[in-house]
Amino acid sequence: MRQIGADRYHDKHPFHRRLHGGDCTPDEVRAWVINRWMYQSRIPMKDAAFLSRVEDPQLRRIWRSRIEDHDGGVTEGGGIRRWLALARAVGLDPDYVASGRGAMPATRFAVDTYVRFVRDMPLLDAVAASLTEMFAPAIHAQRIEGLLAHYDFADDAALSYFRNRLTEAPKDVAFGLNWVLDYADTLEKQDAAAAALSFKTDVLWAQLDALWHGYVEGHIPPGAWRPGEGLAP
Amino acid sequence: MRQIGADRYHDKHPFHRRLHGGDCTPDEVRAWVINRWMYQSRIPMKDAAFLSRVEDPQLRRIWRSRIEDHDGGVTEGGGIRRWLALARAVGLDPDYVASGRGAMPATRFAVDTYVRFVRDMPLLDAVAASLTEMFAPAIHAQRIEGLLAHYDFADDAALSYFRNRLTEAPKDVAFGLNWVLDYADTLEKQDAAAAALSFKTDVLWAQLDALWHGYVEGHIPPGAWRPGEGLAP
Repeated sequence: MRQIGADRYHDKHPFHRRLHGGDCTPDEVRAWVINRWMYQSRIPMKDAAFLSRVEDPQLRRIWRSRIEDHDGGVTEGGGIRRWLALARAVGLDPDYVASGRGAMPATRFAVDTYVRFVRDMPLLDAVAASLTEMFAPAIHAQRIEGLLAHYDFADDAALSYFRNRLTEAPKDVAFGLNWVLDYADTLEKQDAAAAALSFKTDVLWAQLDALWHGYVEGHIPPGAWRPGEGLAP
Repeated sequence: MRQIGADRYHDKHPFHRRLHGGDCTPDEVRAWVINRWMYQSRIPMKDAAFLSRVEDPQLRRIWRSRIEDHDGGVTEGGGIRRWLALARAVGLDPDYVASGRGAMPATRFAVDTYVRFVRDMPLLDAVAASLTEMFAPAIHAQRIEGLLAHYDFADDAALSYFRNRLTEAPKDVAFGLNWVLDYADTLEKQDAAAAALSFKTDVLWAQLDALWHGYVEGHIPPGAWRPGEGLAP
């Protein structure tokens, strides 16, 4: 599982190197914030799809904390509301970002495919796919450091999403990894778990490929956000 | 919507009259507790199926409280753990009840159909189907009174599930009913909402028909609980 991360996790993608190294233009950062919102905001739907298939109430209770981390409460919000603080910091209208209107179709397709995967595949595959979180704290730490060093917009409020994930993700990983290691007790199941994690790295990678093609190379697809749109009033 | 309740809600079913009037044998009560667990314990899966399709984070945050009410936290549990207190009170082994092994196939089919309905149908239909909760506080109040008056096992601890629902259900109904009234702004949508609520009354009624046939008339289907099984050690 860790080798899959070493080979395929999106910390190796050129877009992240560019972002963390301070080489993204403000509009490239905005495009990333807009598109990543689409992924971020669908994660609770993915986790609810998982819950909807779990007959064991105790597993449901444990898994539910993921939805709570991302959605939060009615008044205080959670991770996805913290993401909108980042949107604000980079000069975007948070309502525009939250509407999802500017996300690229390729982003939606990748995200929808992930939600459907979790709805349709065995629970083992769904849990294994979540384990890209094993590799997330390292990328979040790099990101906090890189963004703070290189971009004026970056401050504690703007980056609170990533700081919170530093503590939320390891708790989820500890549970999910143990569950997979316990459950995958045949070679066939172990292969399925590896394939699921590999699929999930594809979901993440495809989003950055689309971002690079659209906003670094400048081939923005019809309907997607164009620089100048959706700015804070 | 209220007329559908007056015509079709399961408070009119002879099994409930028998239960609340003190005419059920201990084994009939046990059969009800075992089968109703199957419904109860799948309600959080139904609500998660709904959440998995909601793109609006604020609607997800509000709806999530239903899962919290039923599943509760890892240590304290929620409504479905309170249901197991009732199981204990009527002399059943709560682990046996929680395993779901003794439930009749007809109960599972009805419950699974409801979960799938919420997963597959438009959100309007899913919310409208939840509105049998409009009629629930009345039946829960009757039930508390009837069980306390007629059965030795009934006390505050055993009936805590129903007492909690007296306050939980109205909050859910207030939200769901307003949502449906706002959203169903064409005759076609209003008909769909009414059909969904009617479908849901069928889901509830079918469970009591199966119970009556199996345990009042004594035609217990293969594999279902038989008196003497699953008793508390």
